[in-house]
Amino acid sequence: MSKIRVGIVGYGNLGRGVELAIKQNPDTELVAVFTRRRPESINLITKGVPVYSIDSAEEHKDEIDVMILCGGSAKDLPEQGPKFASIFNTVDSFDTHAKIPQYFEAVDTAAKKSGKVSIISVGWDPGMFSILRLYGDCILPEGKGYTFWGKGVSQGHSDAVRRVEGVADAKQYTIPVDSALEAVRKGLNPELTTRQKHIRECFVVAKEGADKAKIESEIKNMPDYFADYDTIVHFISQEELDREHSGMPHGGFVFRTGKTGNNGENSHVVEYSIKLDSNPEFTASILVAYARAAYRLSKEKVSGAKTVFDIPPSYLSPKSSIEIMTEFL
Amino acid sequence: MSKIRVGIVGYGNLGRGVELAIKQNPDTELVAVFTRRRPESINLITKGVPVYSIDSAEEHKDEIDVMILCGGSAKDLPEQGPKFASIFNTVDSFDTHAKIPQYFEAVDTAAKKSGKVSIISVGWDPGMFSILRLYGDCILPEGKGYTFWGKGVSQGHSDAVRRVEGVADAKQYTIPVDSALEAVRKGLNPELTTRQKHIRECFVVAKEGADKAKIESEIKNMPDYFADYDTIVHFISQEELDREHSGMPHGGFVFRTGKTGNNGENSHVVEYSIKLDSNPEFTASILVAYARAAYRLSKEKVSGAKTVFDIPPSYLSPKSSIEIMTEFL
Repeated sequence: MSKIRVGIVGYGNLGRGVELAIKQNPDTELVAVFTRRRPESINLITKGVPVYSIDSAEEHKDEIDVMILCGGSAKDLPEQGPKFASIFNTVDSFDTHAKIPQYFEAVDTAAKKSGKVSIISVGWDPGMFSILRLYGDCILPEGKGYTFWGKGVSQGHSDAVRRVEGVADAKQYTIPVDSALEAVRKGLNPELTTRQKHIRECFVVAKEGADKAKIESEIKNMPDYFADYDTIVHFISQEELDREHSGMPHGGFVFRTGKTGNNGENSHVVEYSIKLDSNPEFTASILVAYARAAYRLSKEKVSGAKTVFDIPPSYLSPKSSIEIMTEFL
Repeated sequence: MSKIRVGIVGYGNLGRGVELAIKQNPDTELVAVFTRRRPESINLITKGVPVYSIDSAEEHKDEIDVMILCGGSAKDLPEQGPKFASIFNTVDSFDTHAKIPQYFEAVDTAAKKSGKVSIISVGWDPGMFSILRLYGDCILPEGKGYTFWGKGVSQGHSDAVRRVEGVADAKQYTIPVDSALEAVRKGLNPELTTRQKHIRECFVVAKEGADKAKIESEIKNMPDYFADYDTIVHFISQEELDREHSGMPHGGFVFRTGKTGNNGENSHVVEYSIKLDSNPEFTASILVAYARAAYRLSKEKVSGAKTVFDIPPSYLSPKSSIEIMTEFL
């Protein structure tokens, strides 16, 4: 059986995660990595796979079944998504929630023109969490949904702390508030403010001679990022940061609570949670499963942009219908 | 907009749950209930909806978009599933796991001949739990899956206790073992025996003069049902049974644990759990969401038997693609 030939665009943490996930999925193979850096500067884990300049991607269009786009949502994907959809089947993890409809449109237009399939916003949030939120809404229509993130490292918030004057380095953890989780889990349907849902904890390395009190105050009062939260700031050494906070753990919870019965007399709680040692590797594993789905849809002559909501669960699996039915139903 | 016209076959706990769930889904309406009992003996909650003999169902084939089959898996569905699939789009909760492939075949043959769609084995297990098991296998292929049931009332085990000589009435609760849940949650990948996963707790009303020690021993040693478990037997009065144990709560857990990384150095835990006050009402809510999917597939001229694995999540929702994208992605 021929394997699904996968290309990777962008070789950062996510790209490397996709490379590793491909090794766990024997029906897929990595055929090339595309980078904006000098190709010679990239050392893949997989031996014998070529690294090309991103500008040469189109020359390889007949060698690749699905291209997995591993760039960032802020700057890379808005341009790369539609561009690659006009040449390849693609899967990406576009995660700027507010801009998803316009990104979908741009990718859809390109993919319909090229006759390719692009599955956008794949990962765990957006992705698995989105699916669970939708299932919750459908099966308990008279109910309420909750999403909590963490405990885990937020890249965006860590970057924001690093931009504060006097900060040499920093990591920020998003932590769900236990009492809020408990109230939701008990079916109390609480109305929760931003502050009541999550705590933000920062580990900061100050530059020599920097004013720590000023740094702390600037972080805690930063609009959008921290002002609406209870924020804890710890000053530590670069050595401690490197030793204790170099991982990329993450996690989170999706709840749906609702009522049924003639008078809403019966309560139900559905909870989905994840606890991850490596956020990029877990996200990458999901991207590879959806690359399989993109490949199959393309074989069925489907084209255009899709989201995780459009994909039947069976399309993610390398197993046959009868195997799936016997093993999982 | 015209509503999805739903019929119910069988008006027990599940059928009544479907009736209530239809009230929560304004794009659906209940048009008729079919029963093997005398139609005059049935009092629906919904006023003005007719109750017919199950034998007259075919006469109403143009009035019903989807028939929800609420009979039991042991005796009703093996006959009703294929029979109704030859006349209507159907949704059912066939849950005899070992016989699903042969049931699927029979329904598929009938539905393909009639040009109708039948979604089989819908509910929470089989159903939502099955989907979560499959997603887990796809996104963490180097991993292990676990399913636990309870705490909740098992109808089959309660029936088995009631058949013991000297027993007037009984309820049996299936309870997952906390230490097993914890070991899985920690990512320890334990190998668990039947006994290590679940406890069985029975509340038994003995007939007057019955030998309680003999009843207890007979229950605890019953092959298949209890012999492989740690079983607790309580003798209580009929009044207490009626007062404390008349509900139909249930619940359960699906875990997927797995590793990623170049040497499996990163662990991940995915947990899905439900806690239900009413097992039949929750199951019924899921059936109604899948009735919507069956209706849509039928409009697209799809025919044959389907499982939950074949249905894109968006097909369960009454909301538009753009609403779903904005609200849940």
